[in-house]
Amino acid sequence: MNLVIDAGNTCVKLAVFEGDSLIFRQNSEVHNVAREVKAICDHYPRIKRGIIASVGNLDPKVMPVLTVFCEVHELTPASKTPFKNSYATPQSLGVDRIALATAAFFHNPKGNSLVIDAGTCITYDMVNDYGEYLGGAISPGLHMRYKALHEQTSKLPLLKPEEIIDYIGNSTDTSIHSGVVNGICQEIDGVIDQYKSRFADLTVILTGGDMLFLSKRLKNTIFADSKFLLVGLNYLLEYNKR
Amino acid sequence: MNLVIDAGNTCVKLAVFEGDSLIFRQNSEVHNVAREVKAICDHYPRIKRGIIASVGNLDPKVMPVLTVFCEVHELTPASKTPFKNSYATPQSLGVDRIALATAAFFHNPKGNSLVIDAGTCITYDMVNDYGEYLGGAISPGLHMRYKALHEQTSKLPLLKPEEIIDYIGNSTDTSIHSGVVNGICQEIDGVIDQYKSRFADLTVILTGGDMLFLSKRLKNTIFADSKFLLVGLNYLLEYNKR
Repeated sequence: MNLVIDAGNTCVKLAVFEGDSLIFRQNSEVHNVAREVKAICDHYPRIKRGIIASVGNLDPKVMPVLTVFCEVHELTPASKTPFKNSYATPQSLGVDRIALATAAFFHNPKGNSLVIDAGTCITYDMVNDYGEYLGGAISPGLHMRYKALHEQTSKLPLLKPEEIIDYIGNSTDTSIHSGVVNGICQEIDGVIDQYKSRFADLTVILTGGDMLFLSKRLKNTIFADSKFLLVGLNYLLEYNKR
Repeated sequence: MNLVIDAGNTCVKLAVFEGDSLIFRQNSEVHNVAREVKAICDHYPRIKRGIIASVGNLDPKVMPVLTVFCEVHELTPASKTPFKNSYATPQSLGVDRIALATAAFFHNPKGNSLVIDAGTCITYDMVNDYGEYLGGAISPGLHMRYKALHEQTSKLPLLKPEEIIDYIGNSTDTSIHSGVVNGICQEIDGVIDQYKSRFADLTVILTGGDMLFLSKRLKNTIFADSKFLLVGLNYLLEYNKR
């Protein structure tokens, strides 16, 4: 069994895999991770190895706790990857994007894949049919946009994501919801169309915390998979043990 | 002559109109506005009236200074507008958006107009061919997106807008530039397409501080007019003196 830890900018996702199967997952607050890791390892004593990918502020106590229970691989840009990394600055590639590209490679090894992760940021990552990771883009996520509109202006309120009935908002609140929610969907659909016009038979995978909220509003066909990044990390753990 | 003051979230724009003609314009830091207003009124003693629209933090000293030199209209949602305001909450409509809708109405009185103002925020405002203001959207502007990516994550740098060569960024910096710049262009083009499919013969006006940077990257045909909001304020000053 493997323990997989994805420490993002907003929260930490913990998962247990048995072979390729995800058998347990849980979100945790950043400050609570060491305690959760101990509880999970107590409950699943067959966990032998773990992998940590951190793009956020991981509690420094987590690593010592984890190494008591299992052998740990800390994912870095120096870790081995199954895909060919054509990023111009591979040492600066975020570990979250390494995991997504890995999952794309295993999911669709001989095809063109675009992975869109709608989390704190929206990341776009392209793996082509030669197994090359080409790069992509990083844009502000759903909650980030709401927060920025409030914090960087004098008069706009802080709102939470909400369904939009019409993209023509007729109040401050509905104008903001349209600008954020419809704006993101127009952006994502437009970007998918750009990649589609360049890469034949493109498979598009949407993942991340805002996947469900956004997926039903997109005009393009996408595969929604909430565990894509965790699966990528589990593959990387196996791949790096060789 | 009219003095027009547009106090936005980031900077204050000052303009002098003679009839419908803009004869002078200048940007000012927020803390320096009272001094600039005095200098302009000294230089143009024929200024008889002024209008102020503030969505930001206007220096409270500006109004007393201005009223020494001319009769001032402070634009509020209670000011008279030439268009029919179909906003559900007209008292909450930003004065910047009132000015943009006014300019659209005078620019294209019997047509459908969508005004996109790319400033601190990107605002979308629709005036239809019945002279009705319908509302629109508010989304994060160019600089706001860069700042949010830096401030709301642990590891992303603060970048300034830059040309993108390819929408597939192959470094952290080019990924961010693609996510912000290409993301905004996909959003704007997607939103224009939505309005075009609903309103016949739509005229699209792009204005605001990031107009030039963005306009050449859009696939849709737009009219770029950097003084659109100021012109709207000048119309409103004339309209409210009746």
